[in-house]
Amino acid sequence: MANHPITETEDKQTGRIEAFSDGVLAIAITLLALELKVPRASEELGSSLIRELLKQWPMYLAFVISFFFILVIWINHHRLFTVIRRSDNNLLILNGLLLFGVTLLPFATELVAEYLQQPEQNTAAVIYNGIFLIVSLFFNGLWAYASYKNRLFDAKTDRALVTFIARQYAFGPLLYLIAVIVSAFSALGGLLISLAMGVFFVLPNRSVQRMMDEAQATDG
Amino acid sequence: MANHPITETEDKQTGRIEAFSDGVLAIAITLLALELKVPRASEELGSSLIRELLKQWPMYLAFVISFFFILVIWINHHRLFTVIRRSDNNLLILNGLLLFGVTLLPFATELVAEYLQQPEQNTAAVIYNGIFLIVSLFFNGLWAYASYKNRLFDAKTDRALVTFIARQYAFGPLLYLIAVIVSAFSALGGLLISLAMGVFFVLPNRSVQRMMDEAQATDG
Amino acid sequence: MANHPITETEDKQTGRIEAFSDGVLAIAITLLALELKVPRASEELGSSLIRELLKQWPMYLAFVISFFFILVIWINHHRLFTVIRRSDNNLLILNGLLLFGVTLLPFATELVAEYLQQPEQNTAAVIYNGIFLIVSLFFNGLWAYASYKNRLFDAKTDRALVTFIARQYAFGPLLYLIAVIVSAFSALGGLLISLAMGVFFVLPNRSVQRMMDEAQATDG
Amino acid sequence: MANHPITETEDKQTGRIEAFSDGVLAIAITLLALELKVPRASEELGSSLIRELLKQWPMYLAFVISFFFILVIWINHHRLFTVIRRSDNNLLILNGLLLFGVTLLPFATELVAEYLQQPEQNTAAVIYNGIFLIVSLFFNGLWAYASYKNRLFDAKTDRALVTFIARQYAFGPLLYLIAVIVSAFSALGGLLISLAMGVFFVLPNRSVQRMMDEAQATDG
Repeated sequence: MANHPITETEDKQTGRIEAFSDGVLAIAITLLALELKVPRASEELGSSLIRELLKQWPMYLAFVISFFFILVIWINHHRLFTVIRRSDNNLLILNGLLLFGVTLLPFATELVAEYLQQPEQNTAAVIYNGIFLIVSLFFNGLWAYASYKNRLFDAKTDRALVTFIARQYAFGPLLYLIAVIVSAFSALGGLLISLAMGVFFVLPNRSVQRMMDEAQATDG
Repeated sequence: MANHPITETEDKQTGRIEAFSDGVLAIAITLLALELKVPRASEELGSSLIRELLKQWPMYLAFVISFFFILVIWINHHRLFTVIRRSDNNLLILNGLLLFGVTLLPFATELVAEYLQQPEQNTAAVIYNGIFLIVSLFFNGLWAYASYKNRLFDAKTDRALVTFIARQYAFGPLLYLIAVIVSAFSALGGLLISLAMGVFFVLPNRSVQRMMDEAQATDG
Repeated sequence: MANHPITETEDKQTGRIEAFSDGVLAIAITLLALELKVPRASEELGSSLIRELLKQWPMYLAFVISFFFILVIWINHHRLFTVIRRSDNNLLILNGLLLFGVTLLPFATELVAEYLQQPEQNTAAVIYNGIFLIVSLFFNGLWAYASYKNRLFDAKTDRALVTFIARQYAFGPLLYLIAVIVSAFSALGGLLISLAMGVFFVLPNRSVQRMMDEAQATDG
Repeated sequence: MANHPITETEDKQTGRIEAFSDGVLAIAITLLALELKVPRASEELGSSLIRELLKQWPMYLAFVISFFFILVIWINHHRLFTVIRRSDNNLLILNGLLLFGVTLLPFATELVAEYLQQPEQNTAAVIYNGIFLIVSLFFNGLWAYASYKNRLFDAKTDRALVTFIARQYAFGPLLYLIAVIVSAFSALGGLLISLAMGVFFVLPNRSVQRMMDEAQATDG
């Protein structure tokens, strides 16, 4: 089966997995903003609106971290599916588990925003980073399943790129595990680690870019 | 009309049914998580956050059951539309009825989560499993309409696969009917049946996978 | 330009209008269900859950009417864009106005559900049916613009089908105008008219189906 | 690489950026309407429903401004991606930043609607128009990055059209900056400027239309 041109049926199959995943990711990332609460006009007796808005900084911090986490998941999902060419039942299920983790994020975001200035803040941050850990494990599982012996990949897929990406992804769960451990002692410390990871993954990565450019050049 | 190559117009038609259905299913599955309520910081006097979160177990149970139910509907909808090649007005309407049932699920999920520890829990569980029953009947109606005499299928569609899937689907409504009946006596019992069904349908199914592989191999 | 094959660029353009519209319509139709409120467990002292749920019948009625209205809009939008082949700036704007009307529907649905058993029910029903009237006018405007001198249609588009559909659509605004007028005297009467229209438009329509079959047969 | 035909891989890549962006934009534009609050039936003692609804005019004004702002962003995003042919990591990130700004809009809309008749209205309007300013800057950044030396464009892209659009876009941030400054003195004045800009950008623009028609004619 390896070298035949992609048939319409196959293309359509991963097309819908991508469309459904795009839908869930786009909705989850947009619903995050529903947690951004406007201070009621009647509540702000004697205090300025700016001060009321600034008091809500845990809400903005949690929103920004979760937004960039989901964006990074989407970017990586997108990259993964540019090399996945075939689909099978296990792929649908592993992808479903990934999306299950993602739909929990608006809840976890609200939880950490609500408790960040409360005594129970460390518990909330452990749960929040714990969900990031689980999602990153599901993502690595999806990648491992699809890439194992080029199972669902195009035969032409660049093995060096696959290995490079796999090695990079392996750090995700490890770093989120550290974030969970740190959160048990310092909620803010744990959040700053996951913020840094979002920023780091979004930053332009020259090695990946160069390898993808080469992959495309070989294609053209 | 049977053997002509798929024209762009036809492909586009089922393309939009799939896109709209993906949209509704993706939104419904993500909105479920809006029912996950964060215990207010001020409410938890004297009780730990973990204990407050654990108290909400009916909410998580209902969320998990509904998530996997919608995921299974999506996976089967996806499978169905890999064989459907043509579209007609009745297909749009039957698909619309299926989506009608799906949009009721966030409401039904909240209902069962709210009442699971209340005297009226059996009533709530009957309604909840009743909506699963209705959705599974609509899904079978869609499948029966499309597959009748290969009406909307590609002429090359494997009849053995169609028969096999039809037989498998026939169990759905029957099992959800049992779940409804059990719910009338034990809410939790009814929910555990629908949970088991979600898990069962999501688990890798070797017979279906082998038949789909063969169908694809013939294609290539 | 009339007879050249559809270029990728053009196809992509209407593709995104359809994708964005599918998104807005799918979200609006699913958000309707957020208006379905679960009676709080603590509120139902002395009254059964079933009775509490039945008391909310205006909510279900409004939900069903709005669901089928949006479904009919989507089916017709889908039909329209199977014949539209080109896109221009005015089409984007007219389509945007249509979507503007659609996004108002969850609000209007909640309004009529809230007031249907209140003294102000006629006012609420006039506003509700008034929004249906406006959306149906926007839809006809979109159709008229696209079909005028085959402006955005494929040259092969069947003129008889276009004329037939145009004549059928012309009844929409007229009937919704009647629903608005009736609502001023009887809210329930007005709602039953718009319910009947949803059912009528969704019902299989043999003339349209036959003409579309013929159009596809000519295509193949 | 300039003149080779678009490969499937490349096309698929921008396809998913567009799908994800369509999703976020469609959800954000539809969620705006969730801010439209129905006056509770019990609240309106002694006052008519019409009067209660009219009192909420700041809510409708903010909804209309935000709806047309997002619609204009979508139309321009759509235009931009008809000429973008390739994708790279930076494009994903710049597009992600644009979507970040867009997801803030339902919050900003609710903020301005809540405070427009309060003492703090100027502060709220400065924040609201400030987010429009930031989104328009992100949009221009996306355009500048993609168009720089035709980096991500098709080699055939009409330079005159690119220059014309770039010049038109340059006015956006400038005008929103003016709207921010005016808002500091008059909230309503600032809102009327951003309303006017939405209307202006949506209105048919003959120069752009003619140039796009020519671009398509050259294509055909």
